[in-house]
Amino acid sequence: MTDGVLQEYMGACQARVEQALQRWLPDVRLPPTRLHAAMRYAVLGEGKRIRPLLVYATGAALGTAQGRLDGPACALELIHAYSLVHDDLPAMDDDDLRRGRPTCHRAFDEATAILAGDALQTLAFQVLATDPTLDTRAEVRVRMLEQLARAAGSRGMAGGQALDLDAEGREITSVELENIHIHKTRALIRAGVRLATLLSDAGEDEVARSLDRYAKCIGLAFQVQDDILDVAGQTAVLGKTQGKDQRQDKATYPALLGLDAAREKAQLLCQEALTALDALDAAAEPLRRIARYIVSRNR
Amino acid sequence: MTDGVLQEYMGACQARVEQALQRWLPDVRLPPTRLHAAMRYAVLGEGKRIRPLLVYATGAALGTAQGRLDGPACALELIHAYSLVHDDLPAMDDDDLRRGRPTCHRAFDEATAILAGDALQTLAFQVLATDPTLDTRAEVRVRMLEQLARAAGSRGMAGGQALDLDAEGREITSVELENIHIHKTRALIRAGVRLATLLSDAGEDEVARSLDRYAKCIGLAFQVQDDILDVAGQTAVLGKTQGKDQRQDKATYPALLGLDAAREKAQLLCQEALTALDALDAAAEPLRRIARYIVSRNR
Repeated sequence: MTDGVLQEYMGACQARVEQALQRWLPDVRLPPTRLHAAMRYAVLGEGKRIRPLLVYATGAALGTAQGRLDGPACALELIHAYSLVHDDLPAMDDDDLRRGRPTCHRAFDEATAILAGDALQTLAFQVLATDPTLDTRAEVRVRMLEQLARAAGSRGMAGGQALDLDAEGREITSVELENIHIHKTRALIRAGVRLATLLSDAGEDEVARSLDRYAKCIGLAFQVQDDILDVAGQTAVLGKTQGKDQRQDKATYPALLGLDAAREKAQLLCQEALTALDALDAAAEPLRRIARYIVSRNR
Repeated sequence: MTDGVLQEYMGACQARVEQALQRWLPDVRLPPTRLHAAMRYAVLGEGKRIRPLLVYATGAALGTAQGRLDGPACALELIHAYSLVHDDLPAMDDDDLRRGRPTCHRAFDEATAILAGDALQTLAFQVLATDPTLDTRAEVRVRMLEQLARAAGSRGMAGGQALDLDAEGREITSVELENIHIHKTRALIRAGVRLATLLSDAGEDEVARSLDRYAKCIGLAFQVQDDILDVAGQTAVLGKTQGKDQRQDKATYPALLGLDAAREKAQLLCQEALTALDALDAAAEPLRRIARYIVSRNR
């Protein structure tokens, strides 16, 4: 895979999950129409779709048909989208711009944005509970639902956002910062790999453990790169407000380690992720390319 | 059962679900401690626990061991509690008082309340996905998770709240009002009966259909009575601000039908609920008492 090939692969995954999300999101003509419009606005269109990408690439590495992976890909993107809608609210990060457009509460209103986030979370669980194309045993489905709940809840993503808010305006250590991101970002990225592994019946074997090691490394690398881009990126390319973390006096890796050391950390995590895949064959090539992309992307 | 016996039964169910919720809610000493404190604050202590009560009473009517019903009872109460936390937010109903205490965003802060609600919803699904005491097949667990998601989502409870907000400040018909409450309140009450029916393996038989008819009637009756209490009740007894709906110019049954006709509607729904239980034996006595209680309660 050249980078062009990765771009093509990413484009195909993005198109695939976009179609699946289109099907799962409620029709805007159905009441409550404003709520449904807000849900679709928050999810469809732009978005890197990193979590779905990891679901498809992990499934590919394990020889699982792509069609069976749409459900977990959608579920994770719905959880991610709900968290963005709520994180952008005035009481939280108070952001006006997301994915190059007004945030959900700006485009609609705060009450609708709160409810849209709530309903998107519910829909994520509904997808995993009902999607017939998963084509798996009920026992596997239940384990996937469990993993999604653990990754999203107070000891996962939501907890990470709480730790992040708690850290605002005070000095924190790099250990604390890492703990925030282990929960806030990594938990859901790791769940992407985990759900695809469960669906592929890889269970708890050596390959599953390798994939989890990979996921832990790129999950953290993703956030380090996000922080780097907040310092060194451009608003127009990012689609969100550049420099916002700095102005809000948020702890970031570049702020704590310096920009060069943060870049080095991202590279080391990428290397570690690639090493974790050593025992996997050429089918894991998309996963390898994704690791390199995550620490080299400019948005 | 005399009313005293119902009080005792309700007290036993309340104690039972309180204990189960205590076990499921994250320890306040675990980080993020403030988030966990807010989650516990929003759920534990006061609360009528109507949805858990219906789970236990339906299970009793079908001969299911009470210990197997703690999971669905908790899951529904967690969804209910999350919805109260979010509905009380300044951007929504902007309420200061709930269950006789400051609302969650008053006792903590808005960001924490948003996240606590989010994490409570996640926990509800986690409980159904993982509770070993359900003691049922994975297929049944998946169907219960599906029902919970449908009842809570944009075509259920969250959608009802959106319809309610949309109706504020404008004239609506009694058909529209009923549609709001079918989603906002009834969906989750109906899910209580439904989850217990599924767990009892009553599936789609005649008894299951009777129980669903019962649930539809009392679900609506519950909201009619709530509206009546907002007009005719007392803040100190209610534990929430009396007269709030009127002041906010919200559509209510008494406002649309008059107080007497609203009371009559509640009584008719109660009668219809009781008729639906005609074919059930004495084990359904708690369900019958609950129907009468719902339209005679003063809080």
